[in-house]
Amino acid sequence: MTKTFNDLLARLDACDMKKVAVAVAQDAPVLEAVKAAKERKIADSILVGDEEKIRAIAKEIDMDLTSFEIINVVDTMEAALTAVKLVHDGKADMYMKGLIDTKSFLKSVLDKEVGLRTGKALSHVCVFDIEGVDHLLFLTDVAFMTYPTLEDKVNIIKNTVEICEACGIDNPKVAPLAAVEVVNPKMPATVDAAELTRMNNEGEITGCIVDGPLSMDLAICPEAAQHKGAEGRKIVGDADILLFPDIHAGNLVYKTLVHTAKVINGNIITGTKAPVILTSRSDDFETKVNSLALGAVVAEKLKNN
Amino acid sequence: MTKTFNDLLARLDACDMKKVAVAVAQDAPVLEAVKAAKERKIADSILVGDEEKIRAIAKEIDMDLTSFEIINVVDTMEAALTAVKLVHDGKADMYMKGLIDTKSFLKSVLDKEVGLRTGKALSHVCVFDIEGVDHLLFLTDVAFMTYPTLEDKVNIIKNTVEICEACGIDNPKVAPLAAVEVVNPKMPATVDAAELTRMNNEGEITGCIVDGPLSMDLAICPEAAQHKGAEGRKIVGDADILLFPDIHAGNLVYKTLVHTAKVINGNIITGTKAPVILTSRSDDFETKVNSLALGAVVAEKLKNN
Repeated sequence: MTKTFNDLLARLDACDMKKVAVAVAQDAPVLEAVKAAKERKIADSILVGDEEKIRAIAKEIDMDLTSFEIINVVDTMEAALTAVKLVHDGKADMYMKGLIDTKSFLKSVLDKEVGLRTGKALSHVCVFDIEGVDHLLFLTDVAFMTYPTLEDKVNIIKNTVEICEACGIDNPKVAPLAAVEVVNPKMPATVDAAELTRMNNEGEITGCIVDGPLSMDLAICPEAAQHKGAEGRKIVGDADILLFPDIHAGNLVYKTLVHTAKVINGNIITGTKAPVILTSRSDDFETKVNSLALGAVVAEKLKNN
Repeated sequence: MTKTFNDLLARLDACDMKKVAVAVAQDAPVLEAVKAAKERKIADSILVGDEEKIRAIAKEIDMDLTSFEIINVVDTMEAALTAVKLVHDGKADMYMKGLIDTKSFLKSVLDKEVGLRTGKALSHVCVFDIEGVDHLLFLTDVAFMTYPTLEDKVNIIKNTVEICEACGIDNPKVAPLAAVEVVNPKMPATVDAAELTRMNNEGEITGCIVDGPLSMDLAICPEAAQHKGAEGRKIVGDADILLFPDIHAGNLVYKTLVHTAKVINGNIITGTKAPVILTSRSDDFETKVNSLALGAVVAEKLKNN
């Protein structure tokens, strides 16, 4: 059973090294992350970008490029399309953002010819191993979908349940979060939460257990959940997936955790043919490496589907 | 300068013991909190409620009632109105909820004859002392106002600035939070944040420094703020007041902090003639005592106004 980020990393021991195609790789923090990913046997890389600049940065950070494949493409958009095509064609298992703005990077992900569209909606998932919480938490969506509709939320749940399964967590518990745990017609988030729960009860959302609306304490703290009364609840502080009402709530909780709790975390974009790693400049080194590990675990699952 | 909850408690040494009127006091957790508040010289109490039940609970929790004033009123609503009138008439300095539902309790707060209305909007503020953050954070509104309009947000800021001043924090920095730190017309929270900042720049909101929209890391983490570029920013990880876009974002962050960070916190309702302590059944013992301390500090300030 996967309970910690170490459990997640251990899953990689059993499978071949995955390969990540990096778009516009001439970026020191990204090169440091792929260097560490190789050393820790998480993933190999193909570096697509300005070779001269890649070599200059590698020298600065004392990175031996001998065992890395480099494809020299100077133009940014062209480099991204070249890198994403490697994943599209099965020559790499996952796709990572380098020194390119998010909009252009996502354009390459969604490219009709060489991109990674599946027809599914894209969403973002952040996996947290938090001191004081006895299992992994999958937060969604804290970075990508802004104001998800009910339909969007159904898609986010489907995407995230797949990620949980890839991580070894079957039939995950999904908490559609709100400020309160009772339905209030004046709070649309609670109405959506109740509807998602109904859809799950009636077999319209499968592979998981949905129970909401839930407040954060009922979702992640068994003692608080017991204290408030767990009767009739399917989630008693043991939620795996935390579904946020909107990006503000999700992102504010995400950054609160990063800056005030002891956490290990990684994140990927999902709903694509292969995992997409879109770390931000504010993510630290370990988060980037963890995101590569998470991507590798998911890539292994997709390969076996 | 007040930087921690201990600094806040130290302010009480300089002033007379304040007195709290408790509505429907026959509640073990509330009696334990007022007992501790007395022992720690935070506040005296007047217990209004069913005297027989109050005495029975006091016996159970080994509480000596000799030095407590008890007013026997068996009916719940009548007990609340009796207790709130003590504050209204200046016989007590603050008002606390006991074994009464929130709706009835607030009805007593807002009572036109004996309540604590001021004409100002009511809002909730939660004060956090968080390990890893070097000063107190005032979160608002995480419990009371659901979807504040721009006008509501102005009122919340005014209420919370007063609380900061009472705590010894002059000209506090106010961060209107969002998922992003740039204005996006598709995200109303960012538009409101920019407008609040403009109003502050042009002297329509005074006594504080408003700078938004801000993401959580820019608001509370100086390193992250520096990393992202602090140029032109008035807040660089040193916000005092965290203004949330809505109750979901606020409450989810609040409970995340309580359950995953090392925190000391207390909270009150403000915008009233006297501090109102509306702790919830999920608040722990120390939070209730801290809320009494916060109320006492604010009561001292109001007395001197």
